[in-house]
Amino acid sequence: MTRPPPMAKIRTPPIYTTPTDAATAFYQAFEARDLDAMMATWAEDEDIVCVHPGGTRLVGYAAVRQGWEQLFGGDNHLSFRLEQVVVIETVGLAMQSLVEYITVGKDGNARGTAVCTNVLLRTPVGWRMVMHHASPTPAAPLAEAVGPLH
Amino acid sequence: MTRPPPMAKIRTPPIYTTPTDAATAFYQAFEARDLDAMMATWAEDEDIVCVHPGGTRLVGYAAVRQGWEQLFGGDNHLSFRLEQVVVIETVGLAMQSLVEYITVGKDGNARGTAVCTNVLLRTPVGWRMVMHHASPTPAAPLAEAVGPLH
Repeated sequence: MTRPPPMAKIRTPPIYTTPTDAATAFYQAFEARDLDAMMATWAEDEDIVCVHPGGTRLVGYAAVRQGWEQLFGGDNHLSFRLEQVVVIETVGLAMQSLVEYITVGKDGNARGTAVCTNVLLRTPVGWRMVMHHASPTPAAPLAEAVGPLH
Repeated sequence: MTRPPPMAKIRTPPIYTTPTDAATAFYQAFEARDLDAMMATWAEDEDIVCVHPGGTRLVGYAAVRQGWEQLFGGDNHLSFRLEQVVVIETVGLAMQSLVEYITVGKDGNARGTAVCTNVLLRTPVGWRMVMHHASPTPAAPLAEAVGPLH
Protein backbone atom coordinates (compact mmCIF):
# COMPACT_ATOMS: atom_id res chain seq x y z
CA MET A 1 0.00 0.00 0.00
CA THR A 2 1.42 3.36 -0.96
CA ARG A 3 1.02 6.46 1.07
CA PRO A 4 0.32 9.81 -0.49
CA PRO A 5 3.37 12.05 -0.57
CA PRO A 6 3.61 14.45 2.38
CA MET A 7 2.09 17.82 1.63
CA ALA A 8 4.68 20.38 0.86
CA LYS A 9 4.48 23.28 3.30
CA ILE A 10 3.80 26.03 0.83
CA ARG A 11 2.39 29.36 1.89
CA THR A 12 0.89 31.50 -0.79
CA PRO A 13 1.87 35.05 0.11
CA PRO A 14 -1.24 37.04 1.01
CA ILE A 15 -2.21 40.08 -1.04
CA TYR A 16 -2.88 43.09 1.17
CA THR A 17 -5.34 45.39 -0.56
CA THR A 18 -4.78 48.37 1.74
CA PRO A 19 -1.78 49.80 3.61
CA THR A 20 -3.65 49.19 6.87
CA ASP A 21 -4.08 45.49 6.06
CA ALA A 22 -0.34 45.15 5.46
CA ALA A 23 0.55 47.04 8.64
CA THR A 24 -1.89 44.93 10.69
CA ALA A 25 -0.32 41.75 9.31
CA PHE A 26 3.12 43.17 10.13
CA TYR A 27 2.26 43.59 13.83
CA GLN A 28 0.46 40.23 13.98
CA ALA A 29 3.58 38.53 12.60
CA PHE A 30 5.72 40.54 15.04
CA GLU A 31 3.68 39.38 18.05
CA ALA A 32 3.56 35.80 16.74
CA ARG A 33 7.32 35.84 16.03
CA ASP A 34 6.50 34.31 12.66
CA LEU A 35 9.43 35.03 10.35
CA ASP A 36 7.75 33.88 7.13
CA ALA A 37 4.59 35.84 7.87
CA MET A 38 6.69 38.88 8.78
CA MET A 39 8.70 38.76 5.56
CA ALA A 40 5.51 38.27 3.52
CA THR A 41 4.53 41.79 4.60
CA TRP A 42 7.72 43.29 3.12
CA ALA A 43 8.43 44.16 -0.51
CA GLU A 44 11.07 41.88 -2.01
CA ASP A 45 13.35 44.75 -2.81
CA GLU A 46 16.92 45.84 -2.24
CA ASP A 47 15.73 49.27 -1.09
CA ILE A 48 13.66 48.22 1.92
CA VAL A 49 14.87 49.64 5.22
CA CYS A 50 14.37 48.52 8.82
CA VAL A 51 15.57 50.29 11.96
CA HIS A 52 14.95 48.55 15.29
CA PRO A 53 15.08 50.77 18.40
CA GLY A 54 18.66 51.78 19.11
CA GLY A 55 19.95 49.60 16.30
CA THR A 56 21.79 50.20 13.09
CA ARG A 57 19.91 50.58 9.84
CA LEU A 58 19.27 47.38 7.91
CA VAL A 59 18.93 47.79 4.13
CA GLY A 60 17.74 45.16 1.64
CA TYR A 61 15.59 42.04 1.94
CA ALA A 62 18.36 39.73 3.20
CA ALA A 63 19.54 42.11 5.94
CA VAL A 64 16.00 42.94 7.04
CA ARG A 65 15.13 39.24 7.20
CA GLN A 66 18.27 38.50 9.21
CA GLY A 67 17.34 41.25 11.68
CA TRP A 68 13.89 39.76 12.30
CA GLU A 69 15.34 36.27 12.55
CA GLN A 70 17.74 37.48 15.24
CA LEU A 71 14.96 39.32 17.06
CA PHE A 72 12.55 36.37 17.01
CA GLY A 73 15.34 34.09 18.23
CA GLY A 74 15.37 35.93 21.56
CA ASP A 75 13.30 35.08 24.61
CA ASN A 76 10.97 38.02 24.65
CA HIS A 77 7.37 37.72 23.50
CA LEU A 78 6.35 41.28 22.84
CA SER A 79 2.88 42.73 22.48
CA PHE A 80 1.99 46.09 21.01
CA ARG A 81 -0.69 48.64 21.64
CA LEU A 82 -0.65 51.13 18.80
CA GLU A 83 -1.89 54.63 19.46
CA GLN A 84 -1.93 58.15 18.06
CA VAL A 85 -1.80 56.88 14.50
CA VAL A 86 -1.19 59.52 11.83
CA VAL A 87 -1.64 58.40 8.23
CA ILE A 88 -0.79 60.03 4.91
CA GLU A 89 -1.86 57.94 1.93
CA THR A 90 -1.48 58.44 -1.79
CA VAL A 91 -2.27 56.02 -4.62
CA GLY A 92 1.15 54.41 -4.56
CA LEU A 93 2.82 55.04 -1.21
CA ALA A 94 1.54 55.41 2.34
CA MET A 95 3.10 56.65 5.55
CA GLN A 96 2.01 55.72 9.05
CA SER A 97 3.36 57.34 12.18
CA LEU A 98 2.36 55.80 15.48
CA VAL A 99 3.35 55.29 19.08
CA GLU A 100 4.02 51.69 20.10
CA TYR A 101 3.28 50.84 23.74
CA ILE A 102 5.23 47.63 24.20
CA THR A 103 4.63 44.96 26.82
CA VAL A 104 6.55 41.75 27.33
CA GLY A 105 5.57 38.24 28.39
CA LYS A 106 2.26 36.78 29.44
CA ASP A 107 1.91 39.18 32.34
CA GLY A 108 2.09 42.15 30.01
CA ASN A 109 4.83 43.97 31.88
CA ALA A 110 5.52 47.38 30.40
CA ARG A 111 8.65 47.32 28.27
CA GLY A 112 8.70 50.85 27.00
CA THR A 113 7.43 53.18 24.34
CA ALA A 114 8.66 53.59 20.80
CA VAL A 115 7.79 56.11 18.13
CA CYS A 116 7.50 54.43 14.78
CA THR A 117 7.36 55.37 11.12
CA ASN A 118 6.11 52.75 8.67
CA VAL A 119 6.13 53.31 4.91
CA LEU A 120 4.16 51.03 2.60
CA LEU A 121 4.37 50.67 -1.17
CA ARG A 122 1.68 49.50 -3.56
CA THR A 123 3.29 46.68 -5.52
CA PRO A 124 1.91 44.35 -8.23
CA VAL A 125 1.19 41.85 -5.39
CA GLY A 126 -0.51 44.30 -3.07
CA TRP A 127 0.65 46.71 -0.40
CA ARG A 128 3.96 45.87 1.27
CA MET A 129 6.23 47.36 3.90
CA VAL A 130 9.28 49.19 2.56
CA MET A 131 10.34 50.96 5.77
CA HIS A 132 10.03 50.37 9.50
CA HIS A 133 11.81 52.89 11.69
CA ALA A 134 11.26 52.54 15.43
CA SER A 135 13.10 54.44 18.14
CA PRO A 136 12.69 54.77 21.90
CA THR A 137 10.79 57.81 23.00
CA PRO A 138 10.24 59.40 26.37
CA ALA A 139 6.71 59.83 27.66
CA ALA A 140 7.48 63.50 28.29
CA PRO A 141 6.05 66.41 26.30
CA LEU A 142 7.61 69.08 24.12
CA ALA A 143 10.23 70.33 26.57
CA GLU A 144 12.07 67.04 26.10
CA ALA A 145 11.82 67.11 22.34
CA VAL A 146 15.39 68.05 21.58
CA GLY A 147 17.67 65.12 22.12
CA PRO A 148 21.40 64.84 22.53
CA LEU A 149 22.23 64.75 18.82
CA HIS A 150 20.25 67.63 17.40
CA MET B 1 10.44 115.16 -0.69
CA THR B 2 8.71 111.92 0.19
CA ARG B 3 10.48 108.69 0.70
CA PRO B 4 9.17 105.45 -0.70
CA PRO B 5 7.61 103.25 1.98
CA PRO B 6 9.95 100.70 3.46
CA MET B 7 9.86 97.43 1.65
CA ALA B 8 7.88 94.87 3.58
CA LYS B 9 9.97 91.83 4.33
CA ILE B 10 7.92 89.29 2.47
CA ARG B 11 9.31 85.96 1.48
CA THR B 12 7.48 84.13 -1.24
CA PRO B 13 7.63 80.47 -0.30
CA PRO B 14 9.75 78.58 -2.81
CA ILE B 15 8.19 75.82 -4.91
CA TYR B 16 10.27 72.65 -4.81
CA THR B 17 9.75 70.68 -7.99
CA THR B 18 11.34 67.45 -6.74
CA PRO B 19 11.51 65.66 -3.38
CA THR B 20 15.29 66.06 -3.47
CA ASP B 21 15.00 69.84 -3.84
CA ALA B 22 12.76 70.02 -0.79
CA ALA B 23 15.04 67.77 1.26
CA THR B 24 18.10 69.80 0.26
CA ALA B 25 16.36 73.01 1.34
CA PHE B 26 15.42 71.31 4.61
CA TYR B 27 19.04 70.58 5.50
CA GLN B 28 20.21 74.01 4.32
CA ALA B 29 17.65 75.64 6.61
CA PHE B 30 18.70 73.29 9.42
CA GLU B 31 22.38 74.26 9.09
CA ALA B 32 21.49 77.96 8.75
CA ARG B 33 19.11 77.76 11.75
CA ASP B 34 16.60 79.67 9.63
CA LEU B 35 13.16 78.98 11.09
CA ASP B 36 11.17 80.56 8.25
CA ALA B 37 13.17 78.72 5.60
CA MET B 38 12.80 75.49 7.58
CA MET B 39 9.03 75.81 7.89
CA ALA B 40 8.76 76.69 4.18
CA THR B 41 9.96 73.15 3.44
CA TRP B 42 7.06 71.63 5.44
CA ALA B 43 3.48 71.07 4.33
CA GLU B 44 1.07 73.33 6.20
CA ASP B 45 -0.89 70.43 7.56
CA GLU B 46 -2.10 69.08 10.87
CA ASP B 47 -0.75 65.63 9.99
CA ILE B 48 2.94 66.47 9.67
CA VAL B 49 5.21 64.66 12.11
CA CYS B 50 8.70 65.45 13.42
CA VAL B 51 10.80 63.30 15.74
CA HIS B 52 14.12 64.72 16.90
CA PRO B 53 16.67 62.22 18.23
CA GLY B 54 15.58 60.94 21.62
CA GLY B 55 12.64 63.31 21.69
CA THR B 56 8.91 62.92 21.76
CA ARG B 57 6.89 62.97 18.58
CA LEU B 58 5.66 66.38 17.44
CA VAL B 59 2.46 66.37 15.36
CA GLY B 60 0.98 69.31 13.44
CA TYR B 61 2.45 72.49 12.00
CA ALA B 62 2.40 74.50 15.23
CA ALA B 63 4.13 71.80 17.31
CA VAL B 64 6.69 71.08 14.59
CA ARG B 65 7.48 74.79 14.28
CA GLN B 66 7.83 75.14 18.04
CA GLY B 67 10.27 72.22 18.08
CA TRP B 68 12.52 73.83 15.48
CA GLU B 69 12.30 77.20 17.22
CA GLN B 70 13.48 75.57 20.43
CA LEU B 71 16.26 73.73 18.60
CA PHE B 72 17.50 76.82 16.78
CA GLY B 73 17.43 78.79 20.03
CA GLY B 74 20.24 76.63 21.39
CA ASP B 75 23.95 77.28 21.04
CA ASN B 76 24.88 74.50 18.69
CA HIS B 77 25.60 75.13 15.04
CA LEU B 78 25.25 71.73 13.48
CA SER B 79 26.47 70.53 10.11
CA PHE B 80 25.37 67.40 8.30
CA ARG B 81 27.03 64.96 5.99
CA LEU B 82 24.35 62.78 4.46
CA GLU B 83 25.30 59.30 3.32
CA GLN B 84 23.87 55.94 2.30
CA VAL B 85 20.74 57.55 0.90
CA VAL B 86 17.93 55.15 -0.05
CA VAL B 87 15.03 56.66 -1.98
CA ILE B 88 11.60 55.32 -2.92
CA GLU B 89 9.60 57.76 -5.01
CA THR B 90 6.11 57.62 -6.44
CA VAL B 91 4.12 60.33 -8.19
CA GLY B 92 2.65 61.72 -4.98
CA LEU B 93 4.81 60.67 -2.04
CA ALA B 94 8.52 60.04 -1.57
CA MET B 95 10.57 58.38 1.15
CA GLN B 96 14.21 59.02 1.90
CA SER B 97 16.26 57.03 4.35
CA LEU B 98 19.73 58.27 5.14
CA VAL B 99 22.48 58.37 7.70
CA GLU B 100 23.29 61.81 9.13
CA TYR B 101 26.89 62.32 10.23
CA ILE B 102 26.59 65.35 12.48
CA THR B 103 29.34 67.77 13.43
CA VAL B 104 29.11 70.81 15.66
CA GLY B 105 30.71 74.25 15.63
CA LYS B 106 33.27 75.79 13.33
CA ASP B 107 35.82 73.14 14.11
CA GLY B 108 33.49 70.41 12.93
CA ASN B 109 33.77 68.23 16.02
CA ALA B 110 31.95 64.96 15.61
CA ARG B 111 28.61 65.04 17.41
CA GLY B 112 27.25 61.66 16.50
CA THR B 113 25.36 59.68 13.92
CA ALA B 114 21.63 59.55 13.36
CA VAL B 115 19.52 57.40 11.11
CA CYS B 116 16.79 59.42 9.50
CA THR B 117 13.57 58.85 7.60
CA ASN B 118 12.15 61.76 5.63
CA VAL B 119 8.79 61.58 3.86
CA LEU B 120 7.80 64.20 1.31
CA LEU B 121 4.38 64.91 -0.21
CA ARG B 122 3.60 66.48 -3.56
CA THR B 123 1.28 69.39 -2.76
CA PRO B 124 -0.32 72.05 -4.99
CA VAL B 125 2.66 74.28 -4.07
CA GLY B 126 5.36 71.71 -4.78
CA TRP B 127 7.03 68.99 -2.75
CA ARG B 128 7.01 69.47 1.02
CA MET B 129 8.19 67.58 4.07
CA VAL B 130 5.49 65.71 5.98
CA MET B 131 7.73 63.56 8.21
CA HIS B 132 11.21 63.80 9.71
CA HIS B 133 12.16 60.97 12.04
CA ALA B 134 15.75 61.00 13.30
CA SER B 135 17.16 58.71 15.97
CA PRO B 136 20.65 58.05 17.33
CA THR B 137 22.33 55.04 15.83
CA PRO B 138 25.46 53.13 16.78
CA ALA B 139 28.22 52.78 14.23
CA ALA B 140 28.19 49.04 14.82
CA PRO B 141 26.95 46.43 12.36
CA LEU B 142 24.12 43.92 12.48
CA ALA B 143 24.98 42.31 15.82
CA GLU B 144 23.92 45.54 17.52
CA ALA B 145 20.69 45.80 15.58
CA VAL B 146 18.33 44.69 18.28
CA GLY B 147 17.92 47.42 20.83
CA PRO B 148 16.52 47.45 24.33
CA LEU B 149 12.88 47.86 23.33
CA HIS B 150 12.39 45.25 20.66
